[in-house]
Amino acid sequence: MRRVKILSTGKYLPKKQVTAQELESRLGLPPGWVEKKSGVLVRHFVDGETASEMGAFAAKDALVTAGLSINEIDCIICTSGIPEQAIPCTAALIQKHLGAGDSGIPAFDINSTCLSFLTGLDMVSYLIAAGRYSRVLLVASEIAMGLDWNDKESCTLFGDGAAAAIVAKTEETDTSRILASNLETYSKGAHLTECQGGGNKHHPQEYASHPETFLFRMDGRGVYRLASERLPGFFAGLLQASGLRMADLQLVIPHQASLMAMRLLRKQLDIPEEKLMVIAHNHGNTIAASVPMALHEAIAQGKLQRGDRCMLLGTSAGFSVGGIVLEY
Amino acid sequence: MRRVKILSTGKYLPKKQVTAQELESRLGLPPGWVEKKSGVLVRHFVDGETASEMGAFAAKDALVTAGLSINEIDCIICTSGIPEQAIPCTAALIQKHLGAGDSGIPAFDINSTCLSFLTGLDMVSYLIAAGRYSRVLLVASEIAMGLDWNDKESCTLFGDGAAAAIVAKTEETDTSRILASNLETYSKGAHLTECQGGGNKHHPQEYASHPETFLFRMDGRGVYRLASERLPGFFAGLLQASGLRMADLQLVIPHQASLMAMRLLRKQLDIPEEKLMVIAHNHGNTIAASVPMALHEAIAQGKLQRGDRCMLLGTSAGFSVGGIVLEY
Repeated sequence: MRRVKILSTGKYLPKKQVTAQELESRLGLPPGWVEKKSGVLVRHFVDGETASEMGAFAAKDALVTAGLSINEIDCIICTSGIPEQAIPCTAALIQKHLGAGDSGIPAFDINSTCLSFLTGLDMVSYLIAAGRYSRVLLVASEIAMGLDWNDKESCTLFGDGAAAAIVAKTEETDTSRILASNLETYSKGAHLTECQGGGNKHHPQEYASHPETFLFRMDGRGVYRLASERLPGFFAGLLQASGLRMADLQLVIPHQASLMAMRLLRKQLDIPEEKLMVIAHNHGNTIAASVPMALHEAIAQGKLQRGDRCMLLGTSAGFSVGGIVLEY
Repeated sequence: MRRVKILSTGKYLPKKQVTAQELESRLGLPPGWVEKKSGVLVRHFVDGETASEMGAFAAKDALVTAGLSINEIDCIICTSGIPEQAIPCTAALIQKHLGAGDSGIPAFDINSTCLSFLTGLDMVSYLIAAGRYSRVLLVASEIAMGLDWNDKESCTLFGDGAAAAIVAKTEETDTSRILASNLETYSKGAHLTECQGGGNKHHPQEYASHPETFLFRMDGRGVYRLASERLPGFFAGLLQASGLRMADLQLVIPHQASLMAMRLLRKQLDIPEEKLMVIAHNHGNTIAASVPMALHEAIAQGKLQRGDRCMLLGTSAGFSVGGIVLEY
């Protein structure tokens, strides 16, 4: 248990919306196909925005809500799944867009693909509890660049955008806290979901002859099998560690992998439909920004209120399963 | 102060050595130029090895030295500056090469470019001190892929390789500990050292028309100016926080940016020559693997012994300054 509190959250969506209908006509699919298969009716795509710009917009939103200025933040962690540049880390670029280029605020990235926000929040909660940092800004900002437009199952799922959260030590009079957290990685599934390019394994000069190396690809069945094998035990163990039962949770906020993945998760884990936070239908899967965006929406829509307990939960490429139970 | 101990370290260098003479003939430089300018007499380049393979070799070296099996590790953090693939994180790929694909050991990446190992060690020390993890494997593994072979100042500096460290809670009878640590980021220097490609800002299809976007570039003078502005105060503050004076330190283990950068650092900070650990002459600058490699060599060469105090110190793209004072 760490006496750590989410002070505020923020969100940024690119202005450019892309509807299911537009994708159907672009991909030559029959009307209704995208809604039926991916469930994503509308997602947003960047139109010139960089990831660090979007991240800074989401961060400003969170700062305004918390009534804080960037100078009252003493650590910036970018928890995106994909960096903006190979060098430097994205957190430094976000710091720059926040006008804090001469501040010295430590800035670095934490990456566990779609679970990066959970891993960042989990890790930094120990540093906050120990007094190392007072107020930490977590930012996840994603641009789904490596989509394979020939793979209609995956390319109709993703969206761009950013989310942010400000985390601090809980005041004495308050009950906000992290009750339990866990992360498990099963790398036998490391190549089930991957984009082989973009790092030091494949030089960008290979793109001309092997563009497919730089595309996102996913073995949906393999991921489903591994998730089915690991999620139920992980979920039960995390609940037990938190000392709560499902009935004590106001909300489960899952990674918005896809509407179908969340439906399966809900059934496997026996989560009541009204307790599962879903934003994929009008955001798409925004990679690591997905969980903090859904958290932001849960708060904005009044579905998660102070004193409520919730679980952040998801799977990611790796293959990893991660979760945090917290009292908001 | 965290009662955390570096149990062991490990290193891996690719078999392929490239000498200053070979580079001089490749680049059409007069004999002696590379030695005089970069001071790197020999560096190692991968010859088929991937970053995660090298990382796993270094990790095995550290495991053997500690007398541990991978199953006794409960967290794997990759602290490379550059990932192997865009998806998933490199730590998962390392876990797989260690034969632990079904272990569930949490695996994720932490990135602050050349300071990634320091940031990872710093952060995870709080989780170890709090009892979240018992034995953590930190791995940094680098392949200097985006070198600009037209920029003879930078392309003669870098080398490939990996290093690892296993970190655990200190036993009651032991005095090993982290005395102080700090990280500061000044993103006004974010674009002084960068590789713009490789993330979601530039699609790999841009390589064909703009290969320079995917190359590492550095404004050496700008970095020198910013480092001169920030390093002395940072160094003094970190020493003060540790409660030690320079005379109490057995060794300063700097990021091996270049021989010249380390010479300037030694003069600016008034570090006696025999107290500065240097491995750049036969390793090159191995990006984030540089500090843990130099730590490994310091231990292997008997320059750092149990009970000795040392400082890990460096600057990185970002622009960041980071350091850790520890009793080994």
